[in-house]
Amino acid sequence: MATVNPPRGMRDILPADKARRESLLAVIRERYRAHGFDEIETPAVEEYDRLHAGIGGDNEKLSYNILRRGLDADAIRTGADDPSALSDLGLRYDLTVPLARFYASNRGQLPAVFRAIQIGPVWRAERPQKGRYRQFMQCDIDIMGDDSARAEAELMVASLDALGALGLDGATVRVNDRRVLDWMLDDFGFAADERPGVLITIDKLDKIGPDGIVAELRERGATASAVDAFDAYLRRPQTLEYNPYGERQIRKALPEGAPDEIVAHLVGIGEAVAAGTGATDIPLVFDPFLVRGMGYYTGTIFELAHPSVSYSLGGGGRYDGMIGRFLGQQVPAVGFSLGFERLADLLDQAADAGSQAIVLVHDADVPLAELIAHKAALMVHGRVRLERRVKNFKALLERSAADGYNAFATVSAGVEPGTLELKPLS
Amino acid sequence: MATVNPPRGMRDILPADKARRESLLAVIRERYRAHGFDEIETPAVEEYDRLHAGIGGDNEKLSYNILRRGLDADAIRTGADDPSALSDLGLRYDLTVPLARFYASNRGQLPAVFRAIQIGPVWRAERPQKGRYRQFMQCDIDIMGDDSARAEAELMVASLDALGALGLDGATVRVNDRRVLDWMLDDFGFAADERPGVLITIDKLDKIGPDGIVAELRERGATASAVDAFDAYLRRPQTLEYNPYGERQIRKALPEGAPDEIVAHLVGIGEAVAAGTGATDIPLVFDPFLVRGMGYYTGTIFELAHPSVSYSLGGGGRYDGMIGRFLGQQVPAVGFSLGFERLADLLDQAADAGSQAIVLVHDADVPLAELIAHKAALMVHGRVRLERRVKNFKALLERSAADGYNAFATVSAGVEPGTLELKPLS
Repeated sequence: MATVNPPRGMRDILPADKARRESLLAVIRERYRAHGFDEIETPAVEEYDRLHAGIGGDNEKLSYNILRRGLDADAIRTGADDPSALSDLGLRYDLTVPLARFYASNRGQLPAVFRAIQIGPVWRAERPQKGRYRQFMQCDIDIMGDDSARAEAELMVASLDALGALGLDGATVRVNDRRVLDWMLDDFGFAADERPGVLITIDKLDKIGPDGIVAELRERGATASAVDAFDAYLRRPQTLEYNPYGERQIRKALPEGAPDEIVAHLVGIGEAVAAGTGATDIPLVFDPFLVRGMGYYTGTIFELAHPSVSYSLGGGGRYDGMIGRFLGQQVPAVGFSLGFERLADLLDQAADAGSQAIVLVHDADVPLAELIAHKAALMVHGRVRLERRVKNFKALLERSAADGYNAFATVSAGVEPGTLELKPLS
Repeated sequence: MATVNPPRGMRDILPADKARRESLLAVIRERYRAHGFDEIETPAVEEYDRLHAGIGGDNEKLSYNILRRGLDADAIRTGADDPSALSDLGLRYDLTVPLARFYASNRGQLPAVFRAIQIGPVWRAERPQKGRYRQFMQCDIDIMGDDSARAEAELMVASLDALGALGLDGATVRVNDRRVLDWMLDDFGFAADERPGVLITIDKLDKIGPDGIVAELRERGATASAVDAFDAYLRRPQTLEYNPYGERQIRKALPEGAPDEIVAHLVGIGEAVAAGTGATDIPLVFDPFLVRGMGYYTGTIFELAHPSVSYSLGGGGRYDGMIGRFLGQQVPAVGFSLGFERLADLLDQAADAGSQAIVLVHDADVPLAELIAHKAALMVHGRVRLERRVKNFKALLERSAADGYNAFATVSAGVEPGTLELKPLS
């Protein structure tokens, strides 16, 4: 028989891994709830038109579409050229588009400022590669209805707290603002219509460096005088030193004349995060070249960094325009997505550490009722797994230890329940 | 703007409901783990061919198929008559077919007797109606690799324990065995090929009563002498009294000559469940007319009943043939599915009962860093939600109480963090 596998690019999650993931999620959920966020759930499925409204960026192309039910062969042939004729639903590719739809659907039942937790799978038909799956968990918090920096500060403090509770102290948030980028590109002299392309290039700074950026912009044929101005700015000696976080540093990192309002917004977030985390060194880093890919961001953008890894552990930003697409009325919104799959790979946190897990090895002839009574009696000490005695007793114990069990007992027929002796299992 | 809703037949889950559901799931998960079960997760998506292998019964027709990616219009026209040409994946309609596939995929990494917990959504395109959704949670435990009654007993004891932990003491399990039904129908004289139809009719006993059953069987044109024998059996005075559970009652409820092996199996389960639950009255009821719809059951079948409701709160049975369909090697299996959605409707269990939840109402001019410091200081007492002061202060407090908050504080600018007075919120 051929090998039986999950669908290509997807995976099964086995017991040890599942226990670890659930224990991480329980910590995250508990911390986010403590900060005043409330968990909600939306269907995994949304209407095709909502998933393809141009909000989801590149993810729209990666979405799984569900075949419309009840189509006969004629209808399929007629609709062959029109995706929306064949498909009325799709699997969500993120939690942000469904959240905007949720908010529009349920606004009357939600508080004026709504702080949402969403934890759930999303689906993207990406090319399968190591560590990347076509179904993966996302773990988002969002605040809707608050246009002040209070929202950014609450998101960041809560996420840094959650990360600390997971054992990842010392994380920092790289911060920028889309309005900073807009102003800066305008200041250099890039035309409005070439800025989206310029941002795509700038987003590669970590990979190709300042020289690579300038070369690519020239190659693209961007306005030559603007590229020169940008080049000169990149070559300023202090450009890439952003610490400590505060007004002086932010102004130093930007060309002269940065708008006061945006700088004050960024400074205010820093002071609030310091107050919320109790940190003496503000755990933020201003990065004027942080771009983040999604087109829907309108203000603050940020990414979570930790000294132990080179990649980002999460990120987010303000997207004040999106809910209006569904609701027909603007509602400010800002969100933070933890990179749960990366965290799960990174953290080897044992589930149930310290609690007792017992294997009860029984002879084959122990009467069933006796056996179940032994199990019930042992359960006052912890979780209990029954195993019938096998020839290779040692292998059975090793297997049990590998499964996370830390004690065992043996039993034959005719023994009084509650009298078994527990032995440690190393 | 038109109303924005979740897809037809699906629903959003709002904060209070979500908190309640997660707290129920945490209890169930904890109890099942205590009984030695391990949670796993499979993708929501499985290959089309596996979902349409004839195992899923009627649910196969209700499944959502995912449009194959990369098809051009020509390929769609060519494949218009062949569902599997247009669709290579589908959403799971239960957790049992994916579990059988999972076991076949991962057997080498699982213990010889594998006790699985699965908690997750499934999708069925049923006609929308009150309380029935096209995406809903299932909550299953299964034991693979154990052909003895130990497996049935562990499932039942664990599920009764979980129900008790949810506050539903006094539940009972209605029990039967497909082999009892087979033997009984053979004994009455029904031909092998008419038995599936006869079972469908018997399954309606609760709805149409004994007379209805007999009438429908005659109408169907079932073997007349067999219907007569069945009719006579149904009219025996003691037929519908099954308590207390035990050999005497089981034999009394069946025509004479029931096979010893099956009766002993059923009696053994009862003794073991008594031992595991500590119940003096065995919480099982033998019901020789319990059928359960799925075609894959091969032995014991059961349903969970509670005196507070007329409908079943879960059920399951033995399906020793299914894993072999994927693995090419028979593996005994038995499962129990809790009706999570019904439990969630039934149980009004408050999440976080007893823990502190604080609303901090602040003047608009409290500096952000001060405000976030107040929040951090209050979080030692419980979860904290920030609310900007509004004119209708009373409505704000009422709204907060409705959201589950039980204390509040107010703050103006210039107050030292950690000095706020908490007041109860009724």
